[in-house]
Amino acid sequence: MSKFLIDRLSSLEEYVPGEQPQDKKYIKLNTNESPYPPSEAVLEIINSDEASRLNLYPDPACRELTQAFANLYGVSPETVVFGNGSDEILSFIFQAFCDKNRPAVFPDISYGFYPVFADLYGVPYEEIPLTEDFKVDYHDYLNKKATIIIANPNAPTGIFMPLPEIEEILKSNPNNLVVIDEAYIDFGGESAVNLLPKYDNLIVVGTYSKSRSMAGARLGFAITSKEIAADLNKIRFSTNPYNINRLTLLAGKCAVDDDLYYKENCCKIIEDREYLTEELIKRGFKVLPSKANFIFASSPKISGKDYYLALKERGILVRYFDKERLYPFVRITVGTHGECSKLIEATDDLGKE
Amino acid sequence: MSKFLIDRLSSLEEYVPGEQPQDKKYIKLNTNESPYPPSEAVLEIINSDEASRLNLYPDPACRELTQAFANLYGVSPETVVFGNGSDEILSFIFQAFCDKNRPAVFPDISYGFYPVFADLYGVPYEEIPLTEDFKVDYHDYLNKKATIIIANPNAPTGIFMPLPEIEEILKSNPNNLVVIDEAYIDFGGESAVNLLPKYDNLIVVGTYSKSRSMAGARLGFAITSKEIAADLNKIRFSTNPYNINRLTLLAGKCAVDDDLYYKENCCKIIEDREYLTEELIKRGFKVLPSKANFIFASSPKISGKDYYLALKERGILVRYFDKERLYPFVRITVGTHGECSKLIEATDDLGKE
Repeated sequence: MSKFLIDRLSSLEEYVPGEQPQDKKYIKLNTNESPYPPSEAVLEIINSDEASRLNLYPDPACRELTQAFANLYGVSPETVVFGNGSDEILSFIFQAFCDKNRPAVFPDISYGFYPVFADLYGVPYEEIPLTEDFKVDYHDYLNKKATIIIANPNAPTGIFMPLPEIEEILKSNPNNLVVIDEAYIDFGGESAVNLLPKYDNLIVVGTYSKSRSMAGARLGFAITSKEIAADLNKIRFSTNPYNINRLTLLAGKCAVDDDLYYKENCCKIIEDREYLTEELIKRGFKVLPSKANFIFASSPKISGKDYYLALKERGILVRYFDKERLYPFVRITVGTHGECSKLIEATDDLGKE
Repeated sequence: MSKFLIDRLSSLEEYVPGEQPQDKKYIKLNTNESPYPPSEAVLEIINSDEASRLNLYPDPACRELTQAFANLYGVSPETVVFGNGSDEILSFIFQAFCDKNRPAVFPDISYGFYPVFADLYGVPYEEIPLTEDFKVDYHDYLNKKATIIIANPNAPTGIFMPLPEIEEILKSNPNNLVVIDEAYIDFGGESAVNLLPKYDNLIVVGTYSKSRSMAGARLGFAITSKEIAADLNKIRFSTNPYNINRLTLLAGKCAVDDDLYYKENCCKIIEDREYLTEELIKRGFKVLPSKANFIFASSPKISGKDYYLALKERGILVRYFDKERLYPFVRITVGTHGECSKLIEATDDLGKE
């Protein structure tokens, strides 16, 4: 730490992303990436002809992408905001809508970045424990005096909260913002975008990093009311108006055009999630019911960390969490069918030791 | 504005970037982009093979780029931080190192984003007027009780402050951070990077958007002490650890490898800057002495805004500024020789009206 860092940030603890090893080739089931490449249209648009125009700034209004995206979702372009990944969108949200008078509330087991954002912006926050079966109980979020942030499906559990429950939260909090972080919505959940016409206190956050195979291109979004979108764009233009680079703008538009390809990938991932779940249950694991592209699983025989270490030795990366209640668990990203089979094989192999 | 925006931000005025028209083809001399495409190595690395790996997150540690970059600049990798453009780096700096106890100070005529960052983060600031001949007088920045931000060369004037003057500022402010924003340093100025071994209160900020023809790919950097770099990385990992996307990491590394190509482009731009300056002076313009890839020029016959409008009608975009002292001026980016000639022709043409 330098002597110049402001006092408020001196005890800030940054977010620690999952391992991204650059040296060795692992089967990467640790950061919830899609195992499938982007669609043909995306592969075609990333070429040296487009690269030859990289000397020019991107369109800060993201017009072409926004129009295509808004058409796909059936919303008005004025209700859409893009970020350099959904982390940036979440950062804008904490910055714009939370302070000492508007604290934040989110589950105690959820995306680990929420408390980091809160600390970064000096926002007080309450973490509400999950139920005994690892669910977000919507009753806990009724009539709050806070900005509510819920990942749906939740991470790292994968459990989905049905829309009628979200609607109860929205109804009972007309003066609070409700942020539904739908990073994993395309794997069997139902999006809260459909609730937007009824509620002016809702922000739906999404990402191209999971179902759309663009984690490496960085594109996240918010869909909300025109007024809230204008606030978020005010923050965007006060931080980094050119936050979405040229190639990502183009790739994002192509991904919208090729929507069917990504939907098919999601179907494959859902099938393999069910396969992986069944095979692990057969082997004595407990697996939480997931609507995401990952599962959260525990074995009575081995701790999450030890299972992680044993799999890593066998060339497979998964993720464990350093939180007492989560010690028994690992989070396993659903890869290709072949990758899932290899994880099962490796699990059988380590059972023999 | 929504009812959810926090009070502190209700009067925030965002930065307004230069026009990026998407409809019509202009000769774009308005946002200080390089008129030259990225180097061959960059054009080659942007391909569908790399795009096929966009499903994977980028390396949050930016290892390969950092190593190559540090070698080129002769600094330690631990002293380098990358941002999604240098705007993001500046945003991190205001966030990390400025608050009520550490206000900011910068020239009243400089990069228009500085007061926006200050307002965004609730940082009090002092704007010090330029001298009568539009220079930053280093005496004004001695023995301050504030974080000092100086663009060198300054924008939109293009005037360069010699390193001995920066050194005086650094020496007299051992307990204040001095930020030298070198977006335009490669066009004839001398970088303060060479002062880093002597001063622990210096951050040098740079960008790939100008001399390195990568405005569309978004890559900015800070070079500073290890301790300050660690602070900036703490902010980066608390906001957006994957802020640099995969293709930009690759392109950035290729641009380092092809450094000579960019140096040659800078020489061409410097030549054409001198050409443009001379031709405008012949036509009665006053042109400030620029070490940047733009010139700041005024004519006794026409206001900046009217000159801008007349040029726009003739298919050429330049930039004027809505600040009283700058009314007579336009800022003209140095394009290719052909583009500069066309601007001169258009100027002659409008003189005939």
